[in-house]
Amino acid sequence: MSQRAAKLDFPVSQVRRYLEPGPIVLVSSARGNERNIMTMGWHTVMEFTPSLIGCVISGGNHSFGLIRESGECVINLPTTKLTDIVVGIGNTSGADIDKFEHFGLTAEPATRVKAPLIAECHANFECKLADDGLVDKYNFFIFEVVKAHVATSPKHPQTLHYEGDGVFMVSGKIISRRKLFRPGML
Amino acid sequence: MSQRAAKLDFPVSQVRRYLEPGPIVLVSSARGNERNIMTMGWHTVMEFTPSLIGCVISGGNHSFGLIRESGECVINLPTTKLTDIVVGIGNTSGADIDKFEHFGLTAEPATRVKAPLIAECHANFECKLADDGLVDKYNFFIFEVVKAHVATSPKHPQTLHYEGDGVFMVSGKIISRRKLFRPGML
Repeated sequence: MSQRAAKLDFPVSQVRRYLEPGPIVLVSSARGNERNIMTMGWHTVMEFTPSLIGCVISGGNHSFGLIRESGECVINLPTTKLTDIVVGIGNTSGADIDKFEHFGLTAEPATRVKAPLIAECHANFECKLADDGLVDKYNFFIFEVVKAHVATSPKHPQTLHYEGDGVFMVSGKIISRRKLFRPGML
Repeated sequence: MSQRAAKLDFPVSQVRRYLEPGPIVLVSSARGNERNIMTMGWHTVMEFTPSLIGCVISGGNHSFGLIRESGECVINLPTTKLTDIVVGIGNTSGADIDKFEHFGLTAEPATRVKAPLIAECHANFECKLADDGLVDKYNFFIFEVVKAHVATSPKHPQTLHYEGDGVFMVSGKIISRRKLFRPGML
């Protein structure tokens, strides 16, 4: 597994382009010498600027402690090339294995956080914890995306969208209705 | 526009099946004699039981007041049959028009809330406001789905997933990796 794509900086105010369609993402984190990866399907864009993402990270996940204590993570966007690895990551625990090693993924240094990027993913969004006010009640974290890296191609990566019960919807065709939008709504 | 499908009650604890993949939804609301519909792409599942959905409803939307004051709404799931109507709803304001009339949509009475269901949508999730603690700071509402109605077919409706800039991804093929899941993870 070493299919790394060339990536460019991407405006953090525009990460909705990749996250609003609702893909399963891989969240990487680190604390001291420890690192981990988890799958995440419960997330939403919350604001363009600052670039805010809200998401649920269950206290049962090994990543919970790493993320809450470090106050950082990276949201990585996998494509269908990684389908079975995504499933494997969701069905193993960082308490038992190092998921980067186990799944042959490349941990690359991030720019603004200590959590590593997953090189094989199409995009990497470096995040700092912006608000943990709803963590105790709902396991709901609000992150600010402080740096974004996106592969130069393909323009529309094939992403995975989880329906539960082991079933994924794969992203399909792209349609534009740009001409029907009022300018201020784009 | 009157393509109504037969619908059955659906377990509220399982609405992630339709919302976790990240579709654009239509939110209907009512206050007194007034009613409205808005598009929404910034939402996430937050819990199975109670069935919680978190979402951003900007204060600039005409629906904001109706929803905050009534403490209710319905999250409706449109399919690609409604693509141009979805775009139209997102590009008009309930301050100017009655969107049900203007777009020829059928308002059906809900069971547990006063906000109307949109009959032409594949699924309707009746919601009560569960927590407005983050509304002032982030326009973030947490709703509990108290009743769910889902069309009996098709099993995998073709949904719209917004990327911004007038562009939508249409849901594609369905793949199962059920056999790779540990029983407790399904």
